[in-house]
Amino acid sequence: MGALVECVANFSEGRQQTVIDSIVGTIDSANGVIVLGAESDPDHNRAVVTFVGPPDRVSDAAYAGIQRAGELIDLERHRGQHPRIGAADVIPFVPLREVGMAETVALARKLGKRVGETLNLPVFLYEQAALQEGNRNLADIRRGGYERLKGRIAVGEPPIPDFGPGRLSSAGGCVIGARNLLIAFNVFLDSPDVAIARAIARAIRQSSGGLPHVKALGLFVKGRAQVSMNLTNYKMTSMRCVVAAIRIEARRLGVKMAASEIIGLLPQDALSEVDVAYLQIENFDQSRVLEHQLANLT
Amino acid sequence: MGALVECVANFSEGRQQTVIDSIVGTIDSANGVIVLGAESDPDHNRAVVTFVGPPDRVSDAAYAGIQRAGELIDLERHRGQHPRIGAADVIPFVPLREVGMAETVALARKLGKRVGETLNLPVFLYEQAALQEGNRNLADIRRGGYERLKGRIAVGEPPIPDFGPGRLSSAGGCVIGARNLLIAFNVFLDSPDVAIARAIARAIRQSSGGLPHVKALGLFVKGRAQVSMNLTNYKMTSMRCVVAAIRIEARRLGVKMAASEIIGLLPQDALSEVDVAYLQIENFDQSRVLEHQLANLT
Repeated sequence: MGALVECVANFSEGRQQTVIDSIVGTIDSANGVIVLGAESDPDHNRAVVTFVGPPDRVSDAAYAGIQRAGELIDLERHRGQHPRIGAADVIPFVPLREVGMAETVALARKLGKRVGETLNLPVFLYEQAALQEGNRNLADIRRGGYERLKGRIAVGEPPIPDFGPGRLSSAGGCVIGARNLLIAFNVFLDSPDVAIARAIARAIRQSSGGLPHVKALGLFVKGRAQVSMNLTNYKMTSMRCVVAAIRIEARRLGVKMAASEIIGLLPQDALSEVDVAYLQIENFDQSRVLEHQLANLT
Repeated sequence: MGALVECVANFSEGRQQTVIDSIVGTIDSANGVIVLGAESDPDHNRAVVTFVGPPDRVSDAAYAGIQRAGELIDLERHRGQHPRIGAADVIPFVPLREVGMAETVALARKLGKRVGETLNLPVFLYEQAALQEGNRNLADIRRGGYERLKGRIAVGEPPIPDFGPGRLSSAGGCVIGARNLLIAFNVFLDSPDVAIARAIARAIRQSSGGLPHVKALGLFVKGRAQVSMNLTNYKMTSMRCVVAAIRIEARRLGVKMAASEIIGLLPQDALSEVDVAYLQIENFDQSRVLEHQLANLT
């Protein structure tokens, strides 16, 4: 037992397996952390590595991963469906056990300072760890991606980094923060028309007046239109509710939901057995369940 | 303690308080039952009386209420927003405690036979108590109301009564059945345009491809457009989810949700304190909670 923090690190490489393996290997070989999962997607051109451990150990492992990603990934040549500003694009810490949000925020800010000062990357603190209101929302920092940020940072226009230089190398910027557990959940349509996925995303996401606690984007992934989501409070707006709303929108637009997938882990109480079928989750098994993974650790 | 059945009787009178009082009084004075609530709505022109008791006592009280309603309500002169075929329009029994669905079905069928033979009303057995598949769904029996039924029953066209005569008196027909607990839940829009309420109902109800376990109609009530719903499995499709979907549809159609109301009772676990605000329920207090009412009985 003891304090346990989760890090769900997002890196901008989902195609070259050797690069992905090198970053995951770097994290996995750090002292005192356990990698619970690593997934990559060639269309997103992105990898997500989930690891847990005592707060300081998780921070050190994240630092090593950020450094490695910066050495291996060149944003000048990066193309992909998913918005991104850097090689180590987003590094959120999540308090899991015997640790509070305040400590997790402190952990994120300390890592941000270290990355900014010693790796010389512009660091943006987001969500609960934000020091500037304009940087609280990831979508605001990441809008227009690396390309837009490069132009803006050069002339001192927002988003303004909290640490590090006011210019970008080809490793881009790094968003670091603390947040509560969320569910990353993607729904595929039976259509390649990304305009439909975007229309559905616009209808259901909170920011345009849709479902509370839902962030959504329309993307083109594996030859299909995808509604890519974060559910930031799955108790208030459940996966079932999101899927029901998407089905209604899809029908209106003449398409069907084809399948769904979970990225990373999800808490046990987010899902019943009945739900797995209703939600058409393609990639579900017990290893997706956070509690199942934690039970194997301790 | 002991076996407890609930009856949620729907009568086609929501305007003349003396008529409503007479029917409620008849039920209330029957032996061994307790009336938990009685509500009427002048726009629906309809009253709902919720009572509980041991199965046979509840059946006797329902019989007395059906008889009284048939004496006092004339369907030839009845006008209202809500679909209906009879004075005692729908009489569903719900197993609450120490009684199974099979027993509740038997109770409904026995009452149906008695009402058909001794009160001389055409009786349609529905939901779990249905003897004909075509009568299982209330909306199919009730489509076109008393007026359509009158023409059809005269020539032997469906819906075919399970008991009683093949003709209608001015008391109309009576739908009797057994079902699981449902939540009757209405959402008001900030518009009098009933076409919008109908469009929203069509978008969200299961029968037209919307939310699972949701039945919905668009009506005009108290000067406002209303989406009138039954949630037949509130654990699978929650009140929150329904409201979230209605808000999305409403926004698309340029209106807002103004408020909501519960008809009858609802189970404690259908609603959290946070929900009452999110759902904008105008008429919520603890007396709406079934468990609260049952705790006061025993």
